[in-house]
Amino acid sequence: MRHFAGDEAIVATPDHDRGLAYGDGLFETMRAHGGVIHWWPAHWHRLERGAQVLRIPLPDEARVRRECEALLDGGAGVLKLVLTRGAGGRGYAPPVSPIPHWAISLHPVPDRGPADGLHLRWCDTRLALQPVLAGIKHCNRLEQVLARAEWNEPDIHEGLVRSMEGDVVCATAANVFVLRNDHWTTPAVDRCGIAGVCRDWALQALGADETRLAVTDVEAADAIFLCNAARGILPVARLRDRSWRPHPQVLELQRRLAAEHPAFATEVA
Amino acid sequence: MRHFAGDEAIVATPDHDRGLAYGDGLFETMRAHGGVIHWWPAHWHRLERGAQVLRIPLPDEARVRRECEALLDGGAGVLKLVLTRGAGGRGYAPPVSPIPHWAISLHPVPDRGPADGLHLRWCDTRLALQPVLAGIKHCNRLEQVLARAEWNEPDIHEGLVRSMEGDVVCATAANVFVLRNDHWTTPAVDRCGIAGVCRDWALQALGADETRLAVTDVEAADAIFLCNAARGILPVARLRDRSWRPHPQVLELQRRLAAEHPAFATEVA
Repeated sequence: MRHFAGDEAIVATPDHDRGLAYGDGLFETMRAHGGVIHWWPAHWHRLERGAQVLRIPLPDEARVRRECEALLDGGAGVLKLVLTRGAGGRGYAPPVSPIPHWAISLHPVPDRGPADGLHLRWCDTRLALQPVLAGIKHCNRLEQVLARAEWNEPDIHEGLVRSMEGDVVCATAANVFVLRNDHWTTPAVDRCGIAGVCRDWALQALGADETRLAVTDVEAADAIFLCNAARGILPVARLRDRSWRPHPQVLELQRRLAAEHPAFATEVA
Repeated sequence: MRHFAGDEAIVATPDHDRGLAYGDGLFETMRAHGGVIHWWPAHWHRLERGAQVLRIPLPDEARVRRECEALLDGGAGVLKLVLTRGAGGRGYAPPVSPIPHWAISLHPVPDRGPADGLHLRWCDTRLALQPVLAGIKHCNRLEQVLARAEWNEPDIHEGLVRSMEGDVVCATAANVFVLRNDHWTTPAVDRCGIAGVCRDWALQALGADETRLAVTDVEAADAIFLCNAARGILPVARLRDRSWRPHPQVLELQRRLAAEHPAFATEVA
């Protein structure tokens, strides 16, 4: 295979990876601190679930974890693991005995945005309904790319995305929780969206429910936060005409996360 | 980035390609004969349309074509061109000035299956409705991979795929045309599916219409064929309980394609 970046020829790879060809893979984005990936079991569990859906064989967990820890070398950051079906097969037909391709890379801890909370927008890009692929963190992410490409303003930190049917699903790279009538809910991810590792944690911690949420439910909420495994709990300060002050329950949840997950302890006053 | 195939460490790439990360790219699969890609203008036109939707800058057409012809070296085959947004950006956010990554590879001409026609099945995997991405040949193809993974029987040559709403859209790697009341129709690809280059040719050649087709429309048809740019016009002989004999209009269309496109002239009696 001959590869080019712009007009420059670059190193050729021996095979056509199905991750590159079809997005035929999965990924995890994991927060690390002091060389440790605290939520490793939850990430590996979600990867297993995705691998089951796509029928991609998993590499040896201990080996992958060892390589991740070697890359971390005692440090902190966000470790990304990509697992693809590797090369082979005839067109879309997967190979009978795929040799999975996996790759790891280390990235800086992302900025958390302003302390009083994120400013959000509504995205126009909608998420298609595909129950078979819903929940898992697969590599078909053009919808998220298009949604995130909708704005450039640095004072907008995230965008909320609706499904093709109009219900609120998530932010482009985070899950969303809303407080209404003193009860927390988060959109169900059974038709689209990703079942985030931090979302699972927050569901438990808050005794929250999964439901369908309308735009008006979100805009009328008493509090909102976003969450993901890289950035933890992110209070929301503004969405269109609505603004919210930091809510005691969100601050409490941040403290609780900090107590349970060492990476986030560095970020809470 | 550190890469592994199964348990083996392989060459590391310098950057995280967004094609691999998110399927953030497009591809074309082009039949070549005698060193020439006869439908090059149509393929490049579709690539342009896709690049517009995804806002990926195109490399120089003449340069890409020259590299493709160099790879062909006067020969025949199926040439695959992949174009991704390259590396960079912050998570899903695309880089402001992406340097597109493109790669070409040459593959043998695929088997056309039995001369009297293909045997088809219905796939259970449904295509999600996503008008923004419909028609273009982007790299988010997990639905096709899952649909094609539904069967292993060598005597089943292709599978027909329905949309989430139940209308017939295409085969896993081909478009479909049906003859009813002496008129040809093919499913519209405005909500899902790919606007195939050979489909465009056949639409013109037959004066066919784009419409919505139900399962019963297809099973009750007087003739069916599949088509794609790699394999041309492929008569269908069987689908579930139905079987069809080679239809004069399909044979005539094959001859017409052979007369217009040199690669397919080698395959018609």
